[in-house]
Amino acid sequence: MKKELVIGIDIGGTNTDFGIVDKEGNILWNDSIKTNKYNEVEPFITDLTSKIKTGLAKFRENFIVKGIGVGAPNGNFFTGNIEFAPNLKWKGIIPLADLISKELFLPVTLTNDANAAALGEMIYGAAKGMKDFIVITLGTGLGSGIVVNGKLLYGHDGFAGELGHTVVFSEGRLCGCGKNGCLETYASATGIVTTAIEILNNSKEPSLLRNIKFTEGEEKLSSKDIFQAAEKGDKIALEIFEYTGKILGIKLADAVAFSSPEAIILFGGLANAGKFIFTPTKKYMEYYLLPFFRNKIKLLPSLLNDQNAAILGAAALAWGKE
Amino acid sequence: MKKELVIGIDIGGTNTDFGIVDKEGNILWNDSIKTNKYNEVEPFITDLTSKIKTGLAKFRENFIVKGIGVGAPNGNFFTGNIEFAPNLKWKGIIPLADLISKELFLPVTLTNDANAAALGEMIYGAAKGMKDFIVITLGTGLGSGIVVNGKLLYGHDGFAGELGHTVVFSEGRLCGCGKNGCLETYASATGIVTTAIEILNNSKEPSLLRNIKFTEGEEKLSSKDIFQAAEKGDKIALEIFEYTGKILGIKLADAVAFSSPEAIILFGGLANAGKFIFTPTKKYMEYYLLPFFRNKIKLLPSLLNDQNAAILGAAALAWGKE
Repeated sequence: MKKELVIGIDIGGTNTDFGIVDKEGNILWNDSIKTNKYNEVEPFITDLTSKIKTGLAKFRENFIVKGIGVGAPNGNFFTGNIEFAPNLKWKGIIPLADLISKELFLPVTLTNDANAAALGEMIYGAAKGMKDFIVITLGTGLGSGIVVNGKLLYGHDGFAGELGHTVVFSEGRLCGCGKNGCLETYASATGIVTTAIEILNNSKEPSLLRNIKFTEGEEKLSSKDIFQAAEKGDKIALEIFEYTGKILGIKLADAVAFSSPEAIILFGGLANAGKFIFTPTKKYMEYYLLPFFRNKIKLLPSLLNDQNAAILGAAALAWGKE
Repeated sequence: MKKELVIGIDIGGTNTDFGIVDKEGNILWNDSIKTNKYNEVEPFITDLTSKIKTGLAKFRENFIVKGIGVGAPNGNFFTGNIEFAPNLKWKGIIPLADLISKELFLPVTLTNDANAAALGEMIYGAAKGMKDFIVITLGTGLGSGIVVNGKLLYGHDGFAGELGHTVVFSEGRLCGCGKNGCLETYASATGIVTTAIEILNNSKEPSLLRNIKFTEGEEKLSSKDIFQAAEKGDKIALEIFEYTGKILGIKLADAVAFSSPEAIILFGGLANAGKFIFTPTKKYMEYYLLPFFRNKIKLLPSLLNDQNAAILGAAALAWGKE
């Protein structure tokens, strides 16, 4: 019998990673292209599918390819379209699943990138065996994939799970979506830098971060710098993580009140700050949980590396694990 | 063939309403007892089941009773227990489903009162034909029943859907649950009275509400008084509804970001204030929605009267529509 394989594609604002994956979650071949090099979607599809054809050529003999799964920002599972993605150059509605399917003659299933990460965690990562959990991706923005009773939560239109755009302060920071005070303007790699600049500007406390040049709008300071300063015991850096963790913790308590997950998994750049982000987030989450939820909702780090999780999650879609 | 019937029981903090219901949602017989008259659960069960036996006696000939559904505060679908209900006199864990089943020799299914209301709306009310919606009950507290893909959202432990205890202000009003700033301390019949007292105390504006005696803690002022003053164009009363609607609207926008429901249905005492609560709630909900959600999430009044919805919702449980 021929071995079954699928293709997983993770489209990010900067890179698009893709790979050929077997049922056990082994990535047998992978490659990537620069998403932001393409001003139009058509040449992107041409290059992406031509690379995938090259990869597939290696497996033609003893394998059968079942389908393609794609994780993409603002990807809609119901329509197969990318719809109004603020972090991509292709504007409006892009019928991505159709475009890929026409080139590769395989069924294509699409979902948003955070949902794909949640599938990756469920099948290969920290959420193995769980039926109710939430994955929070802390990257440039804040994405969320919510699993309820073993299935991704899509809602009536395919757009459920936008926790990055829940409200922290009704008159708060301006978000890329046009609203004020969204969670992702505070709890994300971008948000924590904004917090750092605010705290540095409002205090005279010495800090290692003062050695890094920054100007509002175009920061050189990165979330990694804040992490590295925190590791050296920098008071301001620790205060920045405390503030970020408080906001994230309160909103995670809200999420627990909503769907009562067994665990919340933090994934992506900012989650790699380890205890500096986990400790305050857990503390405030517990504090704002209803008493009967306390000490039973796990707050876990992802068990997949960033690139693999997305490819594996997208691949899981192709296996019909949506 | 004998006609099939079920029994629906709605346990509230003040009254317990129950009825015998057919498949079409007709309540063929109903009665009620005072919940808060019973300091212990055992005499409550004795009186409740003895009344139900009297009711059932009328239907013995041509009917078959399939089961019993119960909606109760802090009712847990998974365990059949009422667990730590702050608005009931019976403390701790009460094995309510078992206690009723032992008396009536019928299968008993239990869920919380807001979930029962959501089932009632789905089968007989404003959510007929919908698969994704949220029912918000605005009574003494704020309860919520969340339906996802045609099923009630229970979460990993049966306690999902506690939107009344999501956080509005992290240092806000003290809630009955012990936390600060919970939504139900603002958006409920009790919360709006607290808002009224705050606004009246902080302003010198004349108001019809100043004719109603109130002291903090033990108010005479009710949400109905505020509604009646608003109907007469009272500026303070309108300001109270605007403030309440802003807070509720922002948290409903959060709920949409979570589960993307087709509709949110407002149910219970405060929802009866009609446009005075719906107009500001809708306005702020729309304002704080992600652009692609705007003008497509319905905000609807319940189509069931308060007492019937709860009995019918509880009855729906007995039909296996959980």
